[in-house]
Amino acid sequence: MTTIKDIAKIAGVSVATVSRVINESGYVNVDTRKKVEEAINVMNYSPNEVARSLYKRKSKLIGLLLPDITNPFFPQLARGVEDLLQENGYRLIFGNSDENEDKELDYIRTFVQNNVIGVISSTNFPDSDTYHKLKIPIVFLDRTSNESPSVYADGREGGRIAAREIILRGSKRITILQGPAHIKPAQDRFQGAIEVLEELGMTYDVIQTSSFSYGEAGKWAKELFDKHTDTDGVIASNDIVATAILQEAHRLGKAVPQDVQIIGYDDTPLSSLLSPSLSTIRQPAYDMGREAAGLLIRLIEQDKVEDSIIQLPVSFVERETTRTII
Amino acid sequence: MTTIKDIAKIAGVSVATVSRVINESGYVNVDTRKKVEEAINVMNYSPNEVARSLYKRKSKLIGLLLPDITNPFFPQLARGVEDLLQENGYRLIFGNSDENEDKELDYIRTFVQNNVIGVISSTNFPDSDTYHKLKIPIVFLDRTSNESPSVYADGREGGRIAAREIILRGSKRITILQGPAHIKPAQDRFQGAIEVLEELGMTYDVIQTSSFSYGEAGKWAKELFDKHTDTDGVIASNDIVATAILQEAHRLGKAVPQDVQIIGYDDTPLSSLLSPSLSTIRQPAYDMGREAAGLLIRLIEQDKVEDSIIQLPVSFVERETTRTII
Repeated sequence: MTTIKDIAKIAGVSVATVSRVINESGYVNVDTRKKVEEAINVMNYSPNEVARSLYKRKSKLIGLLLPDITNPFFPQLARGVEDLLQENGYRLIFGNSDENEDKELDYIRTFVQNNVIGVISSTNFPDSDTYHKLKIPIVFLDRTSNESPSVYADGREGGRIAAREIILRGSKRITILQGPAHIKPAQDRFQGAIEVLEELGMTYDVIQTSSFSYGEAGKWAKELFDKHTDTDGVIASNDIVATAILQEAHRLGKAVPQDVQIIGYDDTPLSSLLSPSLSTIRQPAYDMGREAAGLLIRLIEQDKVEDSIIQLPVSFVERETTRTII
Repeated sequence: MTTIKDIAKIAGVSVATVSRVINESGYVNVDTRKKVEEAINVMNYSPNEVARSLYKRKSKLIGLLLPDITNPFFPQLARGVEDLLQENGYRLIFGNSDENEDKELDYIRTFVQNNVIGVISSTNFPDSDTYHKLKIPIVFLDRTSNESPSVYADGREGGRIAAREIILRGSKRITILQGPAHIKPAQDRFQGAIEVLEELGMTYDVIQTSSFSYGEAGKWAKELFDKHTDTDGVIASNDIVATAILQEAHRLGKAVPQDVQIIGYDDTPLSSLLSPSLSTIRQPAYDMGREAAGLLIRLIEQDKVEDSIIQLPVSFVERETTRTII
């Protein structure tokens, strides 16, 4: 393997000079720089990133912490983050926290030990000591904390839109599924929907749920139709749960959307392929990922960053599980 | 921040001795070791992983290359890999190749520059020079290459099972969707199914497809029923495509499974929540990920590894898009 010493020998300069060229630090005469660069090209030399990171106290590694990549909302976020980082020469160390604080702290610690220069985190604990003590830039993604850099979609407005749309399309006995208590975006959308239902004096029921898991989604769907047999409109906590509700409605011989309307949340890719296809609130997950990566890079590369709190809009995607407005 | 010098001072030993303790290299007197370990505990000292990796020429980083994390088969693989690595103190650098050789090589190169000590790759180019030249252990996941360490499911048998099951359940005019030509596991399952259809002298048609993308799945579904109006059994290239076919069958007023049976491939989590729920060939994706991570760790930590080619079984998951055997 070619070393920095080999390059120095071939270029006829000192190792320190080669190092200055590689790290773009300190003064190097133009002709000398050219010689070094030629030697690097000829030898196809690729400087060891770890050695460089020690020298510059800087790597090109970013830590990304997500709750669970098997929830189809998060791969979209991750792709957005990765694509923008990759375009800019950064690399990703990745971990799933399962919304567990200990596991999260363990990951953040090892991210730091591996000299990441920034962290993007979808955490329920943005105000924890771990984040306060971090000496590197951090961006909260899909989560917010007052004043901290963050990228998220407008969950409260998403909930308000879902309630408005299902009411406008004629549902009178609405059931709303409240997502897991510890997941803040789930509570935002729930609160938004409740506000509208209250404002418009609608009759509604609430089913509490404790996870977004595929395995349990069917359970919430059964509970919903057991307890509220005559519901004619369901605001689901996300698309996975909405899919389970659609299945259960079919099992019970209910026509969707004639007997019962269903609105999901997220607009995960499979929603458009369901039959009937799922009406839902769209979060721009891929764009959220890209925005978070872009903001983090600005925080790393610049001294001062304006607009470090970025809220993206949500929108209603009208498909076949809701009726058309006459 | 506590440094190795602080620890040496507190323990009353040299920096070299602390380094020997941390890196478990060279002789250290038992009492001395105890003193150093106490100092490390008291100061809550966490040695800089990058410095250690330089010293030991060894990091705890593993590179993982997948085609596309937004295809719901791959998050399962990634979780399996990550969970086992995390249990063993390793960390993951992650990238999506989009099945593009240039992007893949670029990732592998930067993995190496970041001193990964092993690579897990789902590649269509296992025999490329890049992999041959790698000086660190590599495990191919969901892909194979002759003689190289690899973990994969038995795709040919999966295709054979799909064909047998749809025939046993009474389909006579079968249409089979052939997955993208450049993705080897897709071709394995296709070949397996064709073998059985030929052996049993069945009439069948083939629809060629060039991607597993959500956006294009609907296109293949439309093409299928346009060209083969009277098909009564569809062997899909994966669960995404099967979901689109189910939707199109409903649009055309075909009853599933009475008029047309559908078998998917993968058993991605949402398959069980479709209505009707999707019969499919299950790949043990999470277990495949864990096996690959375990094999890689053995290759890293041991001199000799038996059984470095691991094939996992596939199975038919009977749900509601196929008829019951009478």
